[in-house]
Amino acid sequence: MTPAPLPVQLVEEAVRRALEEDLGLAGDITSNACIPAAATSRAVIAARKAGVIAGVELARAAFRLVDPTIKLRIGRGDGARAHIADAVMRIEGASRGILSAERVALNFLSHLSGVATATAALVEAVKGTKAKIVCTRKTTPGLRAFEKYAVLCGGGSNHRFGLFDAVMIKDNHIAAAGGIALALRAAKASVGHMVKIEIEVDDLAGLEEAIGGGADIVMLDNMSTEELKRAVEINRGRAILEASGNVTLETVRAIAETGVDIISSGWITHSAPALDLGLDF
Amino acid sequence: MTPAPLPVQLVEEAVRRALEEDLGLAGDITSNACIPAAATSRAVIAARKAGVIAGVELARAAFRLVDPTIKLRIGRGDGARAHIADAVMRIEGASRGILSAERVALNFLSHLSGVATATAALVEAVKGTKAKIVCTRKTTPGLRAFEKYAVLCGGGSNHRFGLFDAVMIKDNHIAAAGGIALALRAAKASVGHMVKIEIEVDDLAGLEEAIGGGADIVMLDNMSTEELKRAVEINRGRAILEASGNVTLETVRAIAETGVDIISSGWITHSAPALDLGLDF
Amino acid sequence: MTPAPLPVQLVEEAVRRALEEDLGLAGDITSNACIPAAATSRAVIAARKAGVIAGVELARAAFRLVDPTIKLRIGRGDGARAHIADAVMRIEGASRGILSAERVALNFLSHLSGVATATAALVEAVKGTKAKIVCTRKTTPGLRAFEKYAVLCGGGSNHRFGLFDAVMIKDNHIAAAGGIALALRAAKASVGHMVKIEIEVDDLAGLEEAIGGGADIVMLDNMSTEELKRAVEINRGRAILEASGNVTLETVRAIAETGVDIISSGWITHSAPALDLGLDF
Amino acid sequence: MTPAPLPVQLVEEAVRRALEEDLGLAGDITSNACIPAAATSRAVIAARKAGVIAGVELARAAFRLVDPTIKLRIGRGDGARAHIADAVMRIEGASRGILSAERVALNFLSHLSGVATATAALVEAVKGTKAKIVCTRKTTPGLRAFEKYAVLCGGGSNHRFGLFDAVMIKDNHIAAAGGIALALRAAKASVGHMVKIEIEVDDLAGLEEAIGGGADIVMLDNMSTEELKRAVEINRGRAILEASGNVTLETVRAIAETGVDIISSGWITHSAPALDLGLDF
Amino acid sequence: MTPAPLPVQLVEEAVRRALEEDLGLAGDITSNACIPAAATSRAVIAARKAGVIAGVELARAAFRLVDPTIKLRIGRGDGARAHIADAVMRIEGASRGILSAERVALNFLSHLSGVATATAALVEAVKGTKAKIVCTRKTTPGLRAFEKYAVLCGGGSNHRFGLFDAVMIKDNHIAAAGGIALALRAAKASVGHMVKIEIEVDDLAGLEEAIGGGADIVMLDNMSTEELKRAVEINRGRAILEASGNVTLETVRAIAETGVDIISSGWITHSAPALDLGLDF
Amino acid sequence: MTPAPLPVQLVEEAVRRALEEDLGLAGDITSNACIPAAATSRAVIAARKAGVIAGVELARAAFRLVDPTIKLRIGRGDGARAHIADAVMRIEGASRGILSAERVALNFLSHLSGVATATAALVEAVKGTKAKIVCTRKTTPGLRAFEKYAVLCGGGSNHRFGLFDAVMIKDNHIAAAGGIALALRAAKASVGHMVKIEIEVDDLAGLEEAIGGGADIVMLDNMSTEELKRAVEINRGRAILEASGNVTLETVRAIAETGVDIISSGWITHSAPALDLGLDF
Repeated sequence: MTPAPLPVQLVEEAVRRALEEDLGLAGDITSNACIPAAATSRAVIAARKAGVIAGVELARAAFRLVDPTIKLRIGRGDGARAHIADAVMRIEGASRGILSAERVALNFLSHLSGVATATAALVEAVKGTKAKIVCTRKTTPGLRAFEKYAVLCGGGSNHRFGLFDAVMIKDNHIAAAGGIALALRAAKASVGHMVKIEIEVDDLAGLEEAIGGGADIVMLDNMSTEELKRAVEINRGRAILEASGNVTLETVRAIAETGVDIISSGWITHSAPALDLGLDF
Repeated sequence: MTPAPLPVQLVEEAVRRALEEDLGLAGDITSNACIPAAATSRAVIAARKAGVIAGVELARAAFRLVDPTIKLRIGRGDGARAHIADAVMRIEGASRGILSAERVALNFLSHLSGVATATAALVEAVKGTKAKIVCTRKTTPGLRAFEKYAVLCGGGSNHRFGLFDAVMIKDNHIAAAGGIALALRAAKASVGHMVKIEIEVDDLAGLEEAIGGGADIVMLDNMSTEELKRAVEINRGRAILEASGNVTLETVRAIAETGVDIISSGWITHSAPALDLGLDF
Repeated sequence: MTPAPLPVQLVEEAVRRALEEDLGLAGDITSNACIPAAATSRAVIAARKAGVIAGVELARAAFRLVDPTIKLRIGRGDGARAHIADAVMRIEGASRGILSAERVALNFLSHLSGVATATAALVEAVKGTKAKIVCTRKTTPGLRAFEKYAVLCGGGSNHRFGLFDAVMIKDNHIAAAGGIALALRAAKASVGHMVKIEIEVDDLAGLEEAIGGGADIVMLDNMSTEELKRAVEINRGRAILEASGNVTLETVRAIAETGVDIISSGWITHSAPALDLGLDF
Repeated sequence: MTPAPLPVQLVEEAVRRALEEDLGLAGDITSNACIPAAATSRAVIAARKAGVIAGVELARAAFRLVDPTIKLRIGRGDGARAHIADAVMRIEGASRGILSAERVALNFLSHLSGVATATAALVEAVKGTKAKIVCTRKTTPGLRAFEKYAVLCGGGSNHRFGLFDAVMIKDNHIAAAGGIALALRAAKASVGHMVKIEIEVDDLAGLEEAIGGGADIVMLDNMSTEELKRAVEINRGRAILEASGNVTLETVRAIAETGVDIISSGWITHSAPALDLGLDF
Repeated sequence: MTPAPLPVQLVEEAVRRALEEDLGLAGDITSNACIPAAATSRAVIAARKAGVIAGVELARAAFRLVDPTIKLRIGRGDGARAHIADAVMRIEGASRGILSAERVALNFLSHLSGVATATAALVEAVKGTKAKIVCTRKTTPGLRAFEKYAVLCGGGSNHRFGLFDAVMIKDNHIAAAGGIALALRAAKASVGHMVKIEIEVDDLAGLEEAIGGGADIVMLDNMSTEELKRAVEINRGRAILEASGNVTLETVRAIAETGVDIISSGWITHSAPALDLGLDF
Repeated sequence: MTPAPLPVQLVEEAVRRALEEDLGLAGDITSNACIPAAATSRAVIAARKAGVIAGVELARAAFRLVDPTIKLRIGRGDGARAHIADAVMRIEGASRGILSAERVALNFLSHLSGVATATAALVEAVKGTKAKIVCTRKTTPGLRAFEKYAVLCGGGSNHRFGLFDAVMIKDNHIAAAGGIALALRAAKASVGHMVKIEIEVDDLAGLEEAIGGGADIVMLDNMSTEELKRAVEINRGRAILEASGNVTLETVRAIAETGVDIISSGWITHSAPALDLGLDF
């Protein structure tokens, strides 16, 4: 699946910052010493492990910002599955520029393709159920927009983007508000009509109270699959049900088969290993 | 081991950016709805898995920038090993502020402690050999300074910070310059006396030529442990030898026992899983 | 009503930019010439017209960023109604600092209090009906967070913050997607479970199709009060109904009495006159 | 009248900030869901009320920064008068890009055309007198450069840009300096030869002292038209005379006919209603 | 002479940028290695050559931004004359912080004191004449505000700050406008009443035409002292006369004695040698 | 000599900041008043004094950022020697754009060519010896990358870029660490294998201890040429020797003839006079 494109300003700003980290005040002193300014090359970014690609526009921006005359052709775009040795991107232009941008391009592409690949593994595991795999706010600082996007590339879906765009009532909020019903009432009184309201419960009594209080979504925190099944029955389609906690490649299928709507995973953004990609001349 | 502190401006700028991602234009709408402005709490960030801590100053900045009156006490500082349930940090102050900063603080702390923990595992594995574990430029875009620092917290050491502060001659540079000796000569003519020069070789003939050409460091790329041992013998302490490629927890001891000086790992920065930390009230 | 506080970073960044506009490279050359550095004053920001106050934190930041030793006491906080001659804020400290920050503080406070006052007028007009007054994306560039907040101060509520946090399907989207039902289906397939979906219709047939397609909110564009009443009957509480177009102080009561849930007004943000406030020594 | 163009960096920076507000981390999720990437459209920005146009370059930048392939043709440029239904700008290109940039483009254009239209109304009212209509520092925070420019588009003229580029001595400065003559002397001793000096007086005795002290401009604050006439006679062309206070469409002609040189209005920047413009496909 | 203080935001932003240059991603690795975190020191910034001090606030900000607990006492403030070995500033606090901020503090202080000292030399040379020494727009990029301020510290005065705050008509403008009179007419028609108008002439005929055209200031470009004297006679106090070109310590007195009002020098900002200052423990 | 190009982002950011300083909120009001928008010109930047050119890319960026249609041809590129009246750069395009960018372009070019010219004078003076001329961290705040680059244009070489990329142990560090040997040991234990270690000594005993402790470079501070010669003999090629202190055009040859490897000069960056360049139409 190819999600809609990222806002171009976000892409350029993040790539600019990464290039600053890598080029410092003196630039690529090795290439400048060893490679003539006029030398040109063809190179290819290829997959060394199989996975799902995400971040092609960030890699493109890295090459363009270093040298706007470098030309790219995309072999595997965002959301495509790459097999070992597949060409993700072919690059042609000044050798110095290609080498100066290489690491930044690969760092974005490997990291985000890692997120997409991890997401795709969970999505694959729940195939045939109605459960959607979604990410959380446990993202790498500074890269949230890109990791959320990589989750879409992997076939997943997005939870809220931050503290600002949806209500998520957790145990501390419930305690402070005086209970589930009161917390929901406070939230409804406070936020606008465009904002969805989710509440976290840890038992089935809480679920009933949450539905009664008008929650749009109920998060079932760390429940057993037995409890989750029971929750689905109790719910009868009234609220959207989200299972959270202990979601791994091993457990996710069983969780999905309970009939929940949403399964959220922090692992796909905070701990997915980078996809192994390399640039060869 | 506690490394020297990070420049404070880097810390504040990164935390500010992460807070912007999470707070958007409307802030923490859930806490604002459910929690009275005057409510205060005590909370603790505790380890849910064992590991080495890194990033305490970033977490501190997250709480301070949201609410400067929040008070912190550090239980496990950067470089300290935390066991399951150990208190890393105790937090006291306005409940709203604690909840608004919680996720940003944890995202930095979990990510960087993950890097430190992965580094410490490799360092532990080579204990008793002279090999140092170092990171590479395969870092998360925007977080290089912090990941380099987390490697120090884990007992590792740093390689160059970017393209600008050391020469690293790779195969493409050698090809463009016309061979190892010519590449080294070009580098020496081009860079200042404060810059170290490293060259990558993939066989022992290359090593001899690199040492003869005056390389400060020679990177032995993807060599077998047999070849590495032979390289150490040939070198006789003239250059610093760095082993690179196929470095895992399983292979690292054998690599270290060949007598190389430096073992570099991209995995500790690009793929280390986050350390599981949680904030409890 | 006092809404939850604005994220402090947004406040400081906006005030800093405004101070840069006003102070340039040379600062307040008049006060520097005429007023001794050691002179101190007491001043008061007072209402010269009655209205609802918004933006006190921005004014506070203006004084603090120019001179952190200036002291403020708030007479009328955000959301409070000020009568002519009421003291909104009392200021005490270095005369130069007070004069240098005065205009920036007043520009924020007058503009945002103007938005709050306009909102409050519409809110007052619909009192007793169930209709909520909400703002739109027709905000002053660079000030959206603050104007949305000022709407809350005036007793109104917020619509979506931007293109990113909710779906709003308009005529061009419907045309491109091939009709109301198809556009809703495309939106549901594309966005996550936390995102609300609104669609604009211009007749009652459209309303029926929108409800059938599962829209969370239906915007009734430029309908007569007769049509709006009919829409409320047809809807039977299934979707949230928003009336839009031709909303003025004269028309808003009649619109509210049709029974719609939401009335949106661009005027309260893009054309509300500034509230007349002045600083007196 | 078409004033000289705005510095391009100011334009791009302001538009970038406005796009960030509107696009957030996820972009235009509605257009992305409903409109094919390849779809193209023709659209027109048309006047729904008559007025004077200002801000065309900001609108242009909004479309260009979202999608550089969008093409624009200008129907009514900055400073031109648009009648109802006149095409201000014709736009052709990718439908998604046009829709994503539409609101930011219109927000700038409507706001600044509102300022230009209000200015033009005052300018029209004083036609045939020698009085110039000028704006003040009562501008919308962050938009001063653009509002000052819009005043020029409306046929007005600019007062100082900030605290830094001219001296304006007000009552507090006079009190602190020990009188009009002493304040003028302090200012002359302090500022360079390129800086003009204005002083505010509230009676005719003050005017005489101000002229004697060498003020370049004297602001006559809140004087009756009788007093203004008398001031013009007393002045005999020595200083530039500026009338300030109670300037409305109703009063401005009488003020101008007193013979003052300059009439300043805060209303044209802080309270001018937006000009109603819309984008139609 | 102590001029009015610089806007604090300008100071902090410039110092922050300079600290970033010097501290990079890893900070002061030498002090971190050699000096215990708890070590404290007393140090003094002393003059190694005599001169006029400027930039104390920038030095103060360097220490404060690195370590807010460092304490400073000022021995010679901005505008004061320091003799060899005079203590400009005494510093007390953490040794690491002092050493990390030292170079940035000294770089600002030496550069700006160099500008002040050069200015003071010219001012001293024209003592007793009515000529004021002013700087130009030939400043170091990024440091204009500070160099303009340093000129004031040295007893000089400021010319315009940029292209935006005053009109300066040069030969190309005159040629394009069709002559001196037409250029002045165009300028008067274009700019507001707060903007002064200067024109450059290279002969006495030009001077007459410039005065007739209503120029506020006439720049006499590269004229001999004979011509300058003649210009002063012709002028009879109508315009402000500025001498420009070939202004050196040797020539400036003779130029001043011609009776011109203003003598402008690029040298005091673009080529003044740094004042030799050092930090001693 | 033409050094490798500067990172393009550094160039654009610095030029943007300088243009903001010069154009402010209103732009080039003189050219806008006097020169028709459609007027075009040819101009040339020519040397008025002989020197070595540096900064051509910064000048190019100034013209491009103001008006991307302006065309440049380079007559004397970075590192080339310009004689009086030589054309450094020919410029063709809109007259307004050329005039608006002129001063920023010249300010960069004159300043950096001044640095290159000063460097070249020292390099010329030591011709035939093995000594390299290097710069220090005594650079103009905000311009370090460019001044370091200009030193290369002048035939010099670079010392470390900041506190972060090399160890430089000075007297305070030695005192805190407990002596030369202990300071070197601390540094070696603390920094990675890519970082060079330099130590400052002020007598020959210190030199011996520094070499014994494994310093890569030893800085000989303020030694007489006799001492320097003796140091070269003692060293026997083991460490790199850097002479520092009292380096002037008069003394540098004698210092170089002692046989030291490196001679560092602060003067070439902090006090080099600007090269006199002018733009003629």
